[in-house]
Amino acid sequence: MIYFDNSATTKPYKEVLDSFITVSSKFFGNPSSLHSFGGQAEKLLTQAREQTAKLLGVKMSEIYFTSGGTESNNLAIKGAALRNRNKGKHLITSSIEHPSVAKAMEQLEQEGFEITYISVDDTGRVSVDEIERAIRKDTILISIMHVNNEIGTIQPIEEIGQLLIAYPDILFHVDAVQGIGKVPLSFKNNRIDLCSISSHKFHGLKGTGALYIREGVKIDPLFSGGNQERTLRSGTENVAGAVAMAKALRLTMENGKEGIEQLRKIQTLLRDGLNKIEGLKIHTPIQYSAPHILNFSLKGIKSEVFIHALEQEDIFVSTTSACSSKKKSPSKTLLALGVAEELAESAIRISLSFENTEEEARTVIQVIEKTVNQLGKVMKR
Amino acid sequence: MIYFDNSATTKPYKEVLDSFITVSSKFFGNPSSLHSFGGQAEKLLTQAREQTAKLLGVKMSEIYFTSGGTESNNLAIKGAALRNRNKGKHLITSSIEHPSVAKAMEQLEQEGFEITYISVDDTGRVSVDEIERAIRKDTILISIMHVNNEIGTIQPIEEIGQLLIAYPDILFHVDAVQGIGKVPLSFKNNRIDLCSISSHKFHGLKGTGALYIREGVKIDPLFSGGNQERTLRSGTENVAGAVAMAKALRLTMENGKEGIEQLRKIQTLLRDGLNKIEGLKIHTPIQYSAPHILNFSLKGIKSEVFIHALEQEDIFVSTTSACSSKKKSPSKTLLALGVAEELAESAIRISLSFENTEEEARTVIQVIEKTVNQLGKVMKR
Repeated sequence: MIYFDNSATTKPYKEVLDSFITVSSKFFGNPSSLHSFGGQAEKLLTQAREQTAKLLGVKMSEIYFTSGGTESNNLAIKGAALRNRNKGKHLITSSIEHPSVAKAMEQLEQEGFEITYISVDDTGRVSVDEIERAIRKDTILISIMHVNNEIGTIQPIEEIGQLLIAYPDILFHVDAVQGIGKVPLSFKNNRIDLCSISSHKFHGLKGTGALYIREGVKIDPLFSGGNQERTLRSGTENVAGAVAMAKALRLTMENGKEGIEQLRKIQTLLRDGLNKIEGLKIHTPIQYSAPHILNFSLKGIKSEVFIHALEQEDIFVSTTSACSSKKKSPSKTLLALGVAEELAESAIRISLSFENTEEEARTVIQVIEKTVNQLGKVMKR
Repeated sequence: MIYFDNSATTKPYKEVLDSFITVSSKFFGNPSSLHSFGGQAEKLLTQAREQTAKLLGVKMSEIYFTSGGTESNNLAIKGAALRNRNKGKHLITSSIEHPSVAKAMEQLEQEGFEITYISVDDTGRVSVDEIERAIRKDTILISIMHVNNEIGTIQPIEEIGQLLIAYPDILFHVDAVQGIGKVPLSFKNNRIDLCSISSHKFHGLKGTGALYIREGVKIDPLFSGGNQERTLRSGTENVAGAVAMAKALRLTMENGKEGIEQLRKIQTLLRDGLNKIEGLKIHTPIQYSAPHILNFSLKGIKSEVFIHALEQEDIFVSTTSACSSKKKSPSKTLLALGVAEELAESAIRISLSFENTEEEARTVIQVIEKTVNQLGKVMKR
């Protein structure tokens, strides 16, 4: 199997699963329990928080464990909006956010908040000037993703952070789910107040994630109850999941610059190979793009047909994001870039992990060439 | 180790962990992905849903997977309240609910909802008459737990369900987290609209739970995004966790009547043994109580001191609920029963699982007797 759908989800590292099992079977106590057996679980949870914080360059007390990227994004956005609604009801986001940001915004709109959607250029980037012009006196939150999940465009987080130094009352949320470990991002140096990550995108387990909340930033919880996670996320802590996430993050980060360069090498190999195919158009920009995503369209061949053709060869790629893949409409992200609807309907996303090889990329190019030829003939009949 | 704190959390069954590992390592695809590898994960998720529904006697389409009991309770209560606020803003609950219900109610109160708290008698039971008297034209939701987590009292769910047949517009939510598998409850026959369960309370894994939503009942989601779980709970599904929960539920249910009778036997053994200890008062009622919980106070000995004394003997019990155990205030539940504050401050909860034995119970009685004597002497000095 060649698994090229790592932006949908990744294979958990063996060491990650081993940690999960050890903690679940030997240290299964409830970290909130008063006794020493609960205390052991609490200690492991603290270690996981410490390790995660260190790897992200933030304080331990700034890491809040959640059930994943969608919860982190919803908690950040709704929690910030509800907490600050007396200060203002205006929010700013981009037109190509992940559904867990876009739909959270829509739900808030129904609650009386006003949303400004920043457009993107033909490479998928927002303009910092446009964000500045959108800022109003009643703006309370700006949410911009780090790396776009469909085409891999990197947003100007640093520049937005610079801009927002002049606006201390506006909270800045970054959805870093797709970028973590593959595109370096300093939470601390970019004036980020809230930042979401998801474990299963970097070889951790599904059902676990984290939200970074900068010290001093106040938001409302989505879950009330036993006041775990310093009152912001009640519910018995998934200790084994948190330990597994910390390990996955460490192993991912250990790939370092060399790993990222290797990803870029495979991406370039794919880009060069695919560029030679007639009727194939690559949407992922060369500048400001993550090293692990390559999005392209095959003129005249519907995405779904192509994906099923590739899976016959044991190659797995995707259409748009997994979350949207079963909808029959073309990618909103590609339409926002100005891609024609017909071309957007034939979009394919390849997404790599550090486990993928150049050899796999060469095979995929050959199979895509072959498949395009076969399908092309069928289409022309 | 004698682990008598199973209402805080249980040890996952080995088979449950095995299933989790198999699914996580071999079927790690994203169930929302279009390709067949995602399709395999989707199939496993469907099977888990089917199995869970069958074990609970409901339809597959009525089971929604969540991250645990706290999420299920928050989703049920806030989701129902927000969805129906145009019909009315009055909610009814008891004065001894789990914090994830009580605090969700408090949060809604701040949003302009009105809450009526039903009192309990000295055995911890609500009166159905009092509930009926509390019902108003603008009542939209009644939330009453099945089994109290601290003292094990069983609430008159069947009678409340009967009452509510005359009030088709009022939603009925039951927090069944503590009762599942140990106190039979028919979701279908008791006019229950919403019912919460949590996997780690029945030897499943932390971070997984479910909410039963009766067909036709509409609530608002807490997480917006990729529209998983039929739009009510967005976020990549924790497939391995759901499969593990279905297995844990099956293994738990397989203990059947015999298992429950055995729990009751151990509980009675403990009750009889502890009743002989001077100054020990048992709070768990004989009638209408779950077979796995026994709550008592040791006059003059603070809970915390006693718990740490028992852990020296490798015996683990708890004060109140794990969620509240680190607060230094006496149990609200015991105070609501009319227990004096001084006695409430010395409360201990024993909670059993199907894994516990009579032998363990005998040992615990002996150790408690010995510890009471020792601590009693220290106290009297």
